[in-house]
Amino acid sequence: MALVPWACCPWLVLLCACAWGNPKPVDLQTKDVRNCSSSPQYLPVTVVNTTEKLTALRQQMHTHNLSAYIIPDTDAHMSEYIGEHDKRLAWITGFTGSAGTAVVTMGKAGLWTDSRYWTQAEREMDCNWELHKEVGTAPIVNWLLTEIPARGHVGFDPLLFSIASWESYEMAFRGSDRELVSIISNLVDLVWESERPPAPSQPIYVLQETFTGSTWQEKVSSIRSQMQKHHKAPTALLLSALDETAWLFNLRSSDIPYNPFFYSYTLLTDSSIRLFVNKSRFNSETLQYLNSSCTGSMCVQLEDYSQVHDSIQAYASGAVRIWIGMTYTTYGLYKVIPKEKLVADTYSPVMVTKAVKNNKEQALLRASHVRDAVAMIRYLVWLEKNVPKGIVDEFSGAELLDKFRGEEEFSSGPSFKTISASGLNAALAHYSPTKEFHRKLSSDEMYLLDSGGQYWDGTTDITRTVHWGTPSAFQKEAYTRVLIGNIDLSRLVFPAAISGRVIEAFARRALWNVGLNYGHGTGHGIGNFLCVHEWPVGFQSSSITMGKGMFTSIEPGYYQDGEFGIRLEDVALVVEAKTKTK
Amino acid sequence: MALVPWACCPWLVLLCACAWGNPKPVDLQTKDVRNCSSSPQYLPVTVVNTTEKLTALRQQMHTHNLSAYIIPDTDAHMSEYIGEHDKRLAWITGFTGSAGTAVVTMGKAGLWTDSRYWTQAEREMDCNWELHKEVGTAPIVNWLLTEIPARGHVGFDPLLFSIASWESYEMAFRGSDRELVSIISNLVDLVWESERPPAPSQPIYVLQETFTGSTWQEKVSSIRSQMQKHHKAPTALLLSALDETAWLFNLRSSDIPYNPFFYSYTLLTDSSIRLFVNKSRFNSETLQYLNSSCTGSMCVQLEDYSQVHDSIQAYASGAVRIWIGMTYTTYGLYKVIPKEKLVADTYSPVMVTKAVKNNKEQALLRASHVRDAVAMIRYLVWLEKNVPKGIVDEFSGAELLDKFRGEEEFSSGPSFKTISASGLNAALAHYSPTKEFHRKLSSDEMYLLDSGGQYWDGTTDITRTVHWGTPSAFQKEAYTRVLIGNIDLSRLVFPAAISGRVIEAFARRALWNVGLNYGHGTGHGIGNFLCVHEWPVGFQSSSITMGKGMFTSIEPGYYQDGEFGIRLEDVALVVEAKTKTK
Repeated sequence: MALVPWACCPWLVLLCACAWGNPKPVDLQTKDVRNCSSSPQYLPVTVVNTTEKLTALRQQMHTHNLSAYIIPDTDAHMSEYIGEHDKRLAWITGFTGSAGTAVVTMGKAGLWTDSRYWTQAEREMDCNWELHKEVGTAPIVNWLLTEIPARGHVGFDPLLFSIASWESYEMAFRGSDRELVSIISNLVDLVWESERPPAPSQPIYVLQETFTGSTWQEKVSSIRSQMQKHHKAPTALLLSALDETAWLFNLRSSDIPYNPFFYSYTLLTDSSIRLFVNKSRFNSETLQYLNSSCTGSMCVQLEDYSQVHDSIQAYASGAVRIWIGMTYTTYGLYKVIPKEKLVADTYSPVMVTKAVKNNKEQALLRASHVRDAVAMIRYLVWLEKNVPKGIVDEFSGAELLDKFRGEEEFSSGPSFKTISASGLNAALAHYSPTKEFHRKLSSDEMYLLDSGGQYWDGTTDITRTVHWGTPSAFQKEAYTRVLIGNIDLSRLVFPAAISGRVIEAFARRALWNVGLNYGHGTGHGIGNFLCVHEWPVGFQSSSITMGKGMFTSIEPGYYQDGEFGIRLEDVALVVEAKTKTK
Repeated sequence: MALVPWACCPWLVLLCACAWGNPKPVDLQTKDVRNCSSSPQYLPVTVVNTTEKLTALRQQMHTHNLSAYIIPDTDAHMSEYIGEHDKRLAWITGFTGSAGTAVVTMGKAGLWTDSRYWTQAEREMDCNWELHKEVGTAPIVNWLLTEIPARGHVGFDPLLFSIASWESYEMAFRGSDRELVSIISNLVDLVWESERPPAPSQPIYVLQETFTGSTWQEKVSSIRSQMQKHHKAPTALLLSALDETAWLFNLRSSDIPYNPFFYSYTLLTDSSIRLFVNKSRFNSETLQYLNSSCTGSMCVQLEDYSQVHDSIQAYASGAVRIWIGMTYTTYGLYKVIPKEKLVADTYSPVMVTKAVKNNKEQALLRASHVRDAVAMIRYLVWLEKNVPKGIVDEFSGAELLDKFRGEEEFSSGPSFKTISASGLNAALAHYSPTKEFHRKLSSDEMYLLDSGGQYWDGTTDITRTVHWGTPSAFQKEAYTRVLIGNIDLSRLVFPAAISGRVIEAFARRALWNVGLNYGHGTGHGIGNFLCVHEWPVGFQSSSITMGKGMFTSIEPGYYQDGEFGIRLEDVALVVEAKTKTK
């Protein structure tokens, strides 16, 4: 599954504009989208009425003396996918796309989102909302400066802002005579009230030892020894990302779609282990597994999830130094740690340790991919027989693939929403078919399938592009060059500890040679029954350097706007090369 | 000429330790270096007595209420090479290496430098000086924290600190109860007095129109139009780098070794041009050329070089916005510009414009390389005849090459100190032979020659590695792989505006394939009778993206410690590719 970085936005704009503008893939008529400038205003049935919600939110803003309130698309763990319980942006705006920022002032309400979602926003939002076709902090702040008075306060929930995001707003407001105000109670939650889906309460379970690379005790000891070796000698490590805690304790649940995680934080100190979670989700066996009835250095003390802010604050008042991963810790927890007590690295040692799979984890991840390949091959064989009959579409095909995956041992659902895209739809970034909007598969066009599964032993991700008829000469050339890129990068011998950013061009050169390219990243890490996009491995500038035991996807592609899309993705393991001379 | 980034230090340590430890290249005996722990202390004749200088400096420090004073290796323009007039570090310490930082407290004096210079420092410094075998800000600040009392003041000359360097010290001292104090009078200069070489006074001359790509008036207009287009609408541009002013006005002189520059600053505003320079260095024709007797927008008003600080401060008090290139402007000028009036970019528009050579500049640079090649070929042919006779050494060879270059039209000396290195010496980074220390050239070993010339039309840089006998199978393999790297990167077709960092691995792959690599950068920009290392073009992470009309060196290599070194360097021009499909 390809990650599209923001840097590629200009290209995305082009892509989406072409494709939505084309009547073929989606039967999009003007009556599907709102018209706020007609008289009377026209609102399609898909629109959500937000008038009462906004009135209630503005009352809360008034109580807190705010001129504006920012609602991001995040949860408190900077998760890639977020649970129903956290879909504040969707509830307040009506807009259900995965990326956007809402800002409400006393008189106006605005949504900022990228081009993938402009049409969707016009279908889902009522006329209380302005749609701003921009991304990033600057346009939001510039709009706020014209909309709110001098000395106005702009409120936000610090647990929903990454440190970088907060810094970016803070910088943009500096010297503007407006103040950014952190409010620990989320104002949307206050008005959402009874309508809000409850916090997940299903059991949190122990992943059988067969499926884990080390026991939680071994992992805790290894992380503690890294704490001791750190030159700033942290006394504690705070884990904010959900996959950090799930990995550390070999625990799983299903709070987040596609990711087997549960809402939690961990504060691992040199002498204690504190797990912040809804305790009632553990059965007695799991409590025993965690040694939760003692307070020694190898006992997991359970504290309520909601206590994390106050507990960290209390801990930080002592003679301590708290280590955090800056990339995914929220401003809300960061700000309670005094600067001189902060040990700040880009990624926590859990992230970095998790990135390097040990032999057992490698074997597990391989095994899951072998079974996943069986499901994939069954599906591809089935397609070969049935597409020519004209009975398959993008959506029904994806459903069948899910079924085949579900029949494999240890299956635990898809690892992300299947991209099943025929013809020109495959040129759209992040396209997924729905029951309502999809295209028929045909021997006359290419079909791109990017999908993956969650299994107890591993997470998978694979993309194949096929054609059941006669591809054009250009399609063959593009396909061949994408394949060369995949092979060239997969076979590359490179020095240890090199940055992925420096080598990813090997996946592009065959395309570059004839003036072609692709606008997304070349690959990402992947977990053992964890994230399908597992940071920080990959070919981005923010990725850590490549090391033995890391898995990464390799997924070059080529996209011809309005015509076809090609992507060939495998998951590769970094191994030691046997070179001739050294 | 290869740039060795600091990141390669661990490898450099290894390289130098091996080579200095080997008795062959340099006859290094213990009596060549000081021994401060023997009784009595042993000082070789090469040592400079700094006792009186330090006493005088400490008096100045006392007058300024300082506990410590930092003396960097820089000039006020962050030049790559610095003039005699600016060699404060060498004068106060005795150490003449090109990189280091000295710190003087009331009781101690320390020099920090990298492994290339450890032996040299032990040969040149007396026992007033501690040698610290470390680089970077942190070790210096950590030492200062133990050496100076709480509330102690640490002085520095703000015109010798880059903004980044100042920020790094400022950050390191934060919360330490010591204060970093900027002192505009340089304390070393105050005690250097009459011994100090005078500021250069030779004429500054106009580069003939034959050798320039545009007139200064055209360049000024182009830069002003970029000022107008900038979203922050700067009213002025401050040029601090010496090649910026030399390029803008098509003026040259010889204040800096290897670089035809003159000490200067330029403040280009929307309605005036102010050139800060020693006026007496212009003759009447040049004054006329500059339109220096008027004050209109196309008249160059001359102000004294020493006035720049006060003049910028005065200008900055108005309703203005001053654009600077952050990388090479000093803290001394940066700090006089109020933050809200600062337009800060990594590089000034002059740097970025200069990086893209127009057709005439391209033709000029090519022509200089053709003539330079004649000198190189004459020398290589001469070596082929004379090396087998055993009459050539590294130093005499380099001198002959200088002579051949000097016989070419428009020659203006070498563009850097020639690296003429035989056998194991070629594995040393930045090795240059001297009259005293050099090695004989022989048919039994490889010879690496990295050199370049300054010509009125262009600056050149070329490296060739040769062997007049029978190279070993491994030498042949390494040479071939270095050559493949050079060819692969030179022939690469890549999308416009890509970062050099992302493509430089193509120069390494053939080496990587057999487990080999090199520890320096892959190339750098080059000027038209300007810098041999012309920022910001190149393959570093700080380089700007590659564009049509840019020149860069391409110089992969391979170094076998204690045995041989190979580097093959050409200067390449980025041109538009004619690709098949797009």
